[in-house]
Amino acid sequence: MKVQIIGLGKMGLNLAYNLIDHGYTVFGTDHNQAIREKLESYGGVFFNDFEEMLKEPSDRTIVWLMLPSGQITNNQVETCVKKMRQGDILIDGGNSRYTDTLINGQKAQEKGIHFFDVGTSGGMSGARYGACMMVGGDATVFKMIEPIFSDVCVEKGYLYCGKVGSGHYLKMIHNGIEYGMMQAIGEGFNILHHCEFDYDLPKVATVYNHGSVIRSWLMELAENLLKDDASLQDIEGIIPSSGEGKWTIEEMLRLELTAPVITQALLNRYASQDEEKYGEKIVASLRNQFGGHEVIKK
Amino acid sequence: MKVQIIGLGKMGLNLAYNLIDHGYTVFGTDHNQAIREKLESYGGVFFNDFEEMLKEPSDRTIVWLMLPSGQITNNQVETCVKKMRQGDILIDGGNSRYTDTLINGQKAQEKGIHFFDVGTSGGMSGARYGACMMVGGDATVFKMIEPIFSDVCVEKGYLYCGKVGSGHYLKMIHNGIEYGMMQAIGEGFNILHHCEFDYDLPKVATVYNHGSVIRSWLMELAENLLKDDASLQDIEGIIPSSGEGKWTIEEMLRLELTAPVITQALLNRYASQDEEKYGEKIVASLRNQFGGHEVIKK
Repeated sequence: MKVQIIGLGKMGLNLAYNLIDHGYTVFGTDHNQAIREKLESYGGVFFNDFEEMLKEPSDRTIVWLMLPSGQITNNQVETCVKKMRQGDILIDGGNSRYTDTLINGQKAQEKGIHFFDVGTSGGMSGARYGACMMVGGDATVFKMIEPIFSDVCVEKGYLYCGKVGSGHYLKMIHNGIEYGMMQAIGEGFNILHHCEFDYDLPKVATVYNHGSVIRSWLMELAENLLKDDASLQDIEGIIPSSGEGKWTIEEMLRLELTAPVITQALLNRYASQDEEKYGEKIVASLRNQFGGHEVIKK
Repeated sequence: MKVQIIGLGKMGLNLAYNLIDHGYTVFGTDHNQAIREKLESYGGVFFNDFEEMLKEPSDRTIVWLMLPSGQITNNQVETCVKKMRQGDILIDGGNSRYTDTLINGQKAQEKGIHFFDVGTSGGMSGARYGACMMVGGDATVFKMIEPIFSDVCVEKGYLYCGKVGSGHYLKMIHNGIEYGMMQAIGEGFNILHHCEFDYDLPKVATVYNHGSVIRSWLMELAENLLKDDASLQDIEGIIPSSGEGKWTIEEMLRLELTAPVITQALLNRYASQDEEKYGEKIVASLRNQFGGHEVIKK
């Protein structure tokens, strides 16, 4: 089977290697031409652009997008829908917002193209050696491409979830849970770092990972990073985010549910990014205004 | 080596079995006399009370408490300190608050008794087949009893943490992290339960456990419970707590740190227990007072 990947970044290139390992013919394209060497030295075929790649004759065209979510993915879906033929398969393996996916899926369906949204977890090593994938799309057509997921995922590591959108939705919630879990780990280790006991934090992470209730892959990652440098003095305490936590909370609001932990994990990321601290300056100044409490000057 | 266990409940009896499996002589006592049969049929020796148990001659007396934290443990420590001799070893393997442990350790030390606080994780199955233990106490004496921990814990599953109190403190933070992780999982599955997609939640938990970033023992437990009955219709949505999350937040306040996710996880437990909802009644009534908004009558 041949898979044509658009987007050979951290995730896409590792997926390409993974597919090649499993005997697939992999075509790929990326705006970064330097990827050509990497893909071709591993047995893939690199194309300068999507249209050139699509011209190659194929029994069944399977195009797999591994692009940044939002406008870049949405534009590429539009281009694909224009150029691909009825019966072709278009997979969005990126972290698209499910509301975008519903629109993208609709556009593909109108042209008779089978659209699948695939939420991909497990990070770069997962994409390379065995991922976790959550797939939305047509159930019957899925059966035809199921071997791909069986090949590139770990055992039991893929799920057909339902109609278009359900894959990215499930990945969104996965990331929301991830935000909460990560923040809980960060908070716990911060207290340990500040308390009077003199813990060896890498060893703490090790024992937390062996037989405890909180053993987890995230704790294993914490173990690795603390072993490298438990002081963390070389990095800033700023947590970027790429949207899925925010979308989870927007979804929580749409459904009028509560998710206080995921919400706080998200807000803590925003607070960590807020270097100006304008709100804090207002509060400190108000204390000064009514109570004469000192304001710390720069 | 002989270990004398006080408290043969869910954790203590499993620890006794675990020790017997590893060739230890296990004496035990519990206020519940029905435990005699269970302990003795497995090769342990049951005593009606602590004083009778302590009368048995022994090279080195090692008493291991597995009792509910707070007054029950504190009182038992007091009794032990009175009856035990200089050089004996007293282990508190329960979930004592570390501030209690500091006092208990001080009392033991004044009598020349070596006191160890052991935070125990891994649940009942851990106590039975391989636990995770975090140990505080004297480093030199620890070497003498280290083989016990090596025997009853999983590989790499114990850590000597430092002076008295550090074991229970580390277990407290472990439980704080656990609160946050569990709440994040609960929130994610609640959104999935309410959304428009028709997920098979046991299968979702399975795929989340295979290759994803959030794979963890807690997610495995979620998988098991959802497989039993994903509707959860037979249980109330009330989350009790036994103190360690609260202590984590009190510790956060003492150190003037922030732990918003663990805090929210704790508050959500309290909210879940609040059947009267007096505060909500006030708010609903205020809306009625100023805006004429309807109050829902019983």
